[in-house]
Amino acid sequence: MIVDEGLELLDEDEARELLRLGEVGRVGITIGALPAIFPVNYRVIDGAIVFRTSPGSKMSAAAAGAVVAFEVDDYQLADRSGWSVLAVGPAEVVHDIAVTFQVLEAGLEPLAGGTGRTTIVRIEPSFISGRRIVHEPSTA
Amino acid sequence: MIVDEGLELLDEDEARELLRLGEVGRVGITIGALPAIFPVNYRVIDGAIVFRTSPGSKMSAAAAGAVVAFEVDDYQLADRSGWSVLAVGPAEVVHDIAVTFQVLEAGLEPLAGGTGRTTIVRIEPSFISGRRIVHEPSTA
Repeated sequence: MIVDEGLELLDEDEARELLRLGEVGRVGITIGALPAIFPVNYRVIDGAIVFRTSPGSKMSAAAAGAVVAFEVDDYQLADRSGWSVLAVGPAEVVHDIAVTFQVLEAGLEPLAGGTGRTTIVRIEPSFISGRRIVHEPSTA
Repeated sequence: MIVDEGLELLDEDEARELLRLGEVGRVGITIGALPAIFPVNYRVIDGAIVFRTSPGSKMSAAAAGAVVAFEVDDYQLADRSGWSVLAVGPAEVVHDIAVTFQVLEAGLEPLAGGTGRTTIVRIEPSFISGRRIVHEPSTA
C-alpha cells in the first residue's frame, strides 16, 4: 500500500467493493462548458454504476456519451477516519429492457423519489481508484 | 420555492448558509482531460471556499486558474431527507499571507492530516445553487 501523507491508496478490488456497498454517490459532469456535481442514489450492476434521473434533464443530456466522474466517500471527522473511491468512464442512457428490469429489481429509486425519473444512466468505469485515511504512528 | 418532483430549489441565502456550515465537500476538477472528484475538508472565508492540499499535487495544478465545481450535501436515506449545494467558480492557489493566517486561525486542516499540505486553494463562487428533498402530501 502506498501511503502519501496519511492517505493509503486502495487496490482496485477494495475500491470496487466499497463502490459496490455505497448508496449515495456524486456524479461530475459538464453542463454548458461548466463543471457540476450532483448527488445520486446508485447501484452497481454488472460492474457498472447506474442511477435514475428525469428524461430530458440537464443531467441525462450531459451524461449521454460523455466521460464522467463518479465519487463515493464516507468520512467521520470526529476521529478523522474515512475513505473515498473515484470511478471515471463513459456514461450512457440505458435503452436495454433487461437492464431496466435489473435496476427495478435492485430497488433503485432516485434520492428525491419521483416516479417521473425514468431515465437510467449507466457509467462503465474505465478506471477506479480509492484512498483511505491512515494514522501513522506519531513520531513526536 | 420551485418544486420539481420532490426537489425544492433553495434560494441563494439558504444555499450559502448550508455551504458555510459544511465541513467535508467535494471538488470537481479536470486532470489530463479527464474529470475527477475529490473530497476535501473546507471552510468558507469571506464568501470563498478554501481547502488545503499538497504543493505540486495534481489537485493544486488542476485547480489553479480553472473553473471548478464544489459540492456539499447531507442525506439520510432512512427517511429520504437531505440537501445539496453546488458552487461553481474559478479556483486559485492563495499566495496572500493574510488569507493564509485566516485559514490557519479557522483551524482548517486537510482531511488526512499531513503537515506538508501547505497549498491553500480558494474557490470564488460565481454562482451557488441548492436543492432539498421535500415530501409532498401523498395523493394516494
